[in-house]
Amino acid sequence: MKMKGIHGGDIYRNHVKVDFSVNVNPFGIPEAVEAALYEAIENCSKYPDISAERLKKAVSGMLHVPMESLLFGNGASELFMAIIHGIKPKKTVIQTPSFYGYEYAAKTAEGEIVYYETKEENDFCLQKDFFSVLTEDVDLLFLANPNNPTGTLMKRKELINVLDHCRNKEIYVVLDECFIEFCDKECSMLQEIDCFPNLILVRAFTKIFAIPGVRLGYLVCSNPSLSEKIGRQLPEWNLSSFAQAAGYECAMQTAFVEKTVAYIKKERQFLESGLRQAGYQVFTGKANFLLIYCEHPLYDRLLEKGILIRDCENFRGLSKGFYRIAVKSRKENEALLRTIGEIKWN
Amino acid sequence: MKMKGIHGGDIYRNHVKVDFSVNVNPFGIPEAVEAALYEAIENCSKYPDISAERLKKAVSGMLHVPMESLLFGNGASELFMAIIHGIKPKKTVIQTPSFYGYEYAAKTAEGEIVYYETKEENDFCLQKDFFSVLTEDVDLLFLANPNNPTGTLMKRKELINVLDHCRNKEIYVVLDECFIEFCDKECSMLQEIDCFPNLILVRAFTKIFAIPGVRLGYLVCSNPSLSEKIGRQLPEWNLSSFAQAAGYECAMQTAFVEKTVAYIKKERQFLESGLRQAGYQVFTGKANFLLIYCEHPLYDRLLEKGILIRDCENFRGLSKGFYRIAVKSRKENEALLRTIGEIKWN
Repeated sequence: MKMKGIHGGDIYRNHVKVDFSVNVNPFGIPEAVEAALYEAIENCSKYPDISAERLKKAVSGMLHVPMESLLFGNGASELFMAIIHGIKPKKTVIQTPSFYGYEYAAKTAEGEIVYYETKEENDFCLQKDFFSVLTEDVDLLFLANPNNPTGTLMKRKELINVLDHCRNKEIYVVLDECFIEFCDKECSMLQEIDCFPNLILVRAFTKIFAIPGVRLGYLVCSNPSLSEKIGRQLPEWNLSSFAQAAGYECAMQTAFVEKTVAYIKKERQFLESGLRQAGYQVFTGKANFLLIYCEHPLYDRLLEKGILIRDCENFRGLSKGFYRIAVKSRKENEALLRTIGEIKWN
Repeated sequence: MKMKGIHGGDIYRNHVKVDFSVNVNPFGIPEAVEAALYEAIENCSKYPDISAERLKKAVSGMLHVPMESLLFGNGASELFMAIIHGIKPKKTVIQTPSFYGYEYAAKTAEGEIVYYETKEENDFCLQKDFFSVLTEDVDLLFLANPNNPTGTLMKRKELINVLDHCRNKEIYVVLDECFIEFCDKECSMLQEIDCFPNLILVRAFTKIFAIPGVRLGYLVCSNPSLSEKIGRQLPEWNLSSFAQAAGYECAMQTAFVEKTVAYIKKERQFLESGLRQAGYQVFTGKANFLLIYCEHPLYDRLLEKGILIRDCENFRGLSKGFYRIAVKSRKENEALLRTIGEIKWN
């Protein structure tokens, strides 16, 4: 039976051999992180550290930001909820197409949501009219860099312009950098965190360290009163012993991340050119996934062969025919291209 | 350095050999649950099941309640927060002394909190004047059975009277049964769930299965619109692969729970009589911990010997001199009594 949820990765209600619908690191979990998870089992009859000190110190060291600027969540999704509960926005702007989680979180507030649609003809990039949506009555903006599912990566200057405008209009900005580690780090706003008290930068360990099952995300915010407001909406002990142990080791994995960036770049190009050769329209993304367009029922035909991709029809701002494909290992990418090549459309 | 937090169990900032400050099952993690955690590591590079189907089915079978009546949380603490975010109470009643988590959650709403104090001279039991606090303008009541840190166990009839009164006054009741598995099950309100659409019964796997590091709690509620309101405030993927795998196995541990109940009953009596013989005032609790009173600095003197107990001075409604001690294994209980016997008060 074929079932499509609002998210990708539903391997629990589909028969899947290879999952191209979720975008995790093809190298899998780093060895040291896996070892930390095994060790954590021995400690899970104790309460996890309520202040997650060891983890906080390690991530503070990794990012070169003070511990006070960090908040951790049971996945980025918990942080999005806490942000909404803390800020209680009366008006929120969400870029589309983008990750459904922003809308899911924003709808728990009673305020209005305004969707700013980026268009296919503009390669899903923000246009100048974006600023006209960011008026003084807006409390909160959700942006993702790179954006999901388009893979669009905003440049530093462009992002700083947005942040600057929002600071002037007193608009908080949630900048989701959950996929930034797969990209050119130059585009991260981490360095700018001190300049923008309205900036809430969200990241996760999920994708880059291939641990979605562990649940661990964090946010960086230099504004103490804003941080306090958001943190107050997080439950106590929200981080499991597993999340704390794994996260600590993740913070040590500099070489692993560098290796990943180089590999993904090469494999994305390989997959992109293979898909183009096969006649598909591929959008130029910079992340570890590619958005493509195809008029045939690609999702169904691949699922018949045990390959799950992300059908993007249900993304606000997209329509039938858009699919997202993760960049995986060379062997898997080759297998995908081979399978696609074998499909005969009647 | 001695540090006291608002909760027990701070083994991360104290030198502790034996921890009597947290109340988990002295038998430790059941073998099958531990095995499931090891297996979960192999799956944690995949997204956990967003609808936790396997877990839900198992717990539904264990409790004999329909799956639709269950909501799962990353620990009971996440559920308390979601309840507050979902109900947005204008006025909340909290019994004291009790678990700090209710107050922590309730304060994220903007409403008023009224504390109903149970008194030492009444053995910390609710009195008739409790009903006079539960007026029509109250939206939510937090109650724990057995209560923590007093161990007081309310009888069925007493509880049904409260639930009945609250149903008439349209007051939602959060009944925290996180320690009920250690007690006489007769006192659980699980059987009454269908009669009380205002009842939200909260439980956790933390204590009875000794897995506080895993984070897993659940609530039972027969009222679909209330359930929907609360569930909508939970983040997506709030349950890790570890929580889902462990929880499934926990739901199969009927014999383990029965063995625990018998053991705890015997050990509580042993510890209680030992403490009384040593000259301490012990309150008659029915849970896997005991509240005691002692005019000497017992916390400090035991910590010097590497034993951590819960100093209850910071519980609202208690004062200096109250301590909570977990019922642990016979060997540990004996060691505690021996150490206490050796202390000379000058």
